[in-house]
Amino acid sequence: MTYSARFQIRTRGDTDVIDITDRVGRVLTESGIRQGILVVFVVGSTAGVTTTEAEPGLLNHDLKAFWERVAPQKEYYHHEQTWHDDNGHAHVRASALGPSLAIPVVDGRLTLGTWQQIVLLDFDTRPRQREIVVQIVGEAAG
Amino acid sequence: MTYSARFQIRTRGDTDVIDITDRVGRVLTESGIRQGILVVFVVGSTAGVTTTEAEPGLLNHDLKAFWERVAPQKEYYHHEQTWHDDNGHAHVRASALGPSLAIPVVDGRLTLGTWQQIVLLDFDTRPRQREIVVQIVGEAAG
Amino acid sequence: MTYSARFQIRTRGDTDVIDITDRVGRVLTESGIRQGILVVFVVGSTAGVTTTEAEPGLLNHDLKAFWERVAPQKEYYHHEQTWHDDNGHAHVRASALGPSLAIPVVDGRLTLGTWQQIVLLDFDTRPRQREIVVQIVGEAAG
Repeated sequence: MTYSARFQIRTRGDTDVIDITDRVGRVLTESGIRQGILVVFVVGSTAGVTTTEAEPGLLNHDLKAFWERVAPQKEYYHHEQTWHDDNGHAHVRASALGPSLAIPVVDGRLTLGTWQQIVLLDFDTRPRQREIVVQIVGEAAG
Repeated sequence: MTYSARFQIRTRGDTDVIDITDRVGRVLTESGIRQGILVVFVVGSTAGVTTTEAEPGLLNHDLKAFWERVAPQKEYYHHEQTWHDDNGHAHVRASALGPSLAIPVVDGRLTLGTWQQIVLLDFDTRPRQREIVVQIVGEAAG
Repeated sequence: MTYSARFQIRTRGDTDVIDITDRVGRVLTESGIRQGILVVFVVGSTAGVTTTEAEPGLLNHDLKAFWERVAPQKEYYHHEQTWHDDNGHAHVRASALGPSLAIPVVDGRLTLGTWQQIVLLDFDTRPRQREIVVQIVGEAAG
């Protein structure tokens, strides 16, 4: 059994980190799937998905500071010559993080830890409306 | 068909890198699934999962040195102000690496290379008992 | 329903970034699966898989510059002492990026964005013939 849903998230860009756990959880509930694998996937090449503890220090400061350290915005990116834009760092960060996350579904619940939430990171240089695809494969019984 | 199992791994923390390939392989054998997708997922927000060659240089030195270079322990993390703890770097490293890994199952085996093992990285600042969820979706026949 | 295929990609190594979207898409078409989850997995511990915009700036310059900044080739790696080789940085980069990617399949198509392609990154220090496994779990109907 396969279940698919999409939802949209408005971001501020600039390595905005947004907790999407509730939205993903709602899709799982709607699906009726009790045992399986759930994939969270962000459409586009300047955003990524991972997990973290959703507390203000990490969400508003520390993850952004990490990505700025490893792929600084002010560095020269050849990408920006191609399009005459300013988001080379956003592409690089998104590729390094990855656009998707696979999570087990056991007894109708994601196997996340208590302080482990699903987050979208939008690295682009402007506010964006992001599309998240949630795909679940598994069984309703059990 | 879906199969689910959990096991625990005792770590020393401090970017301890532990080969869990045999434990994951045992779950696959128990499952009887021959064709499908297997997900390895670590519960918690200060650890991650990936693959590497399980030889002492990488396991005991090189991966840790990489994570120390990109997310130094002594850097200031706002997370530590929130909880008055010392593991901000561990959260950042875990989010960058990601908590899960999806591997094909073909003819009852993982499609890993000969020198490619599944490893748990525990970034926390103290020894932990980690919970690993192995989730397999697929078919017993074929 | 599970479908599995393998294909090979000749690379130049040295953080060669290769767009494999068409090859993966062909496997999906052959599978006949319309709804499900597709996993792209690279065999070996010196390569990785992610998505990016397949334009020359990112493919030929920016991603390589990022990996050189965070895991420099000339750094000392204990791995090289173990094998007396020169690809410690390649192992470290591959572990940080990860060998696999899970993508939703909806109505027979991958849910990639218009400027979001699937890429193989070969970090090894010499040309390689890489093996990619594409594994799809889902349904033909729908």
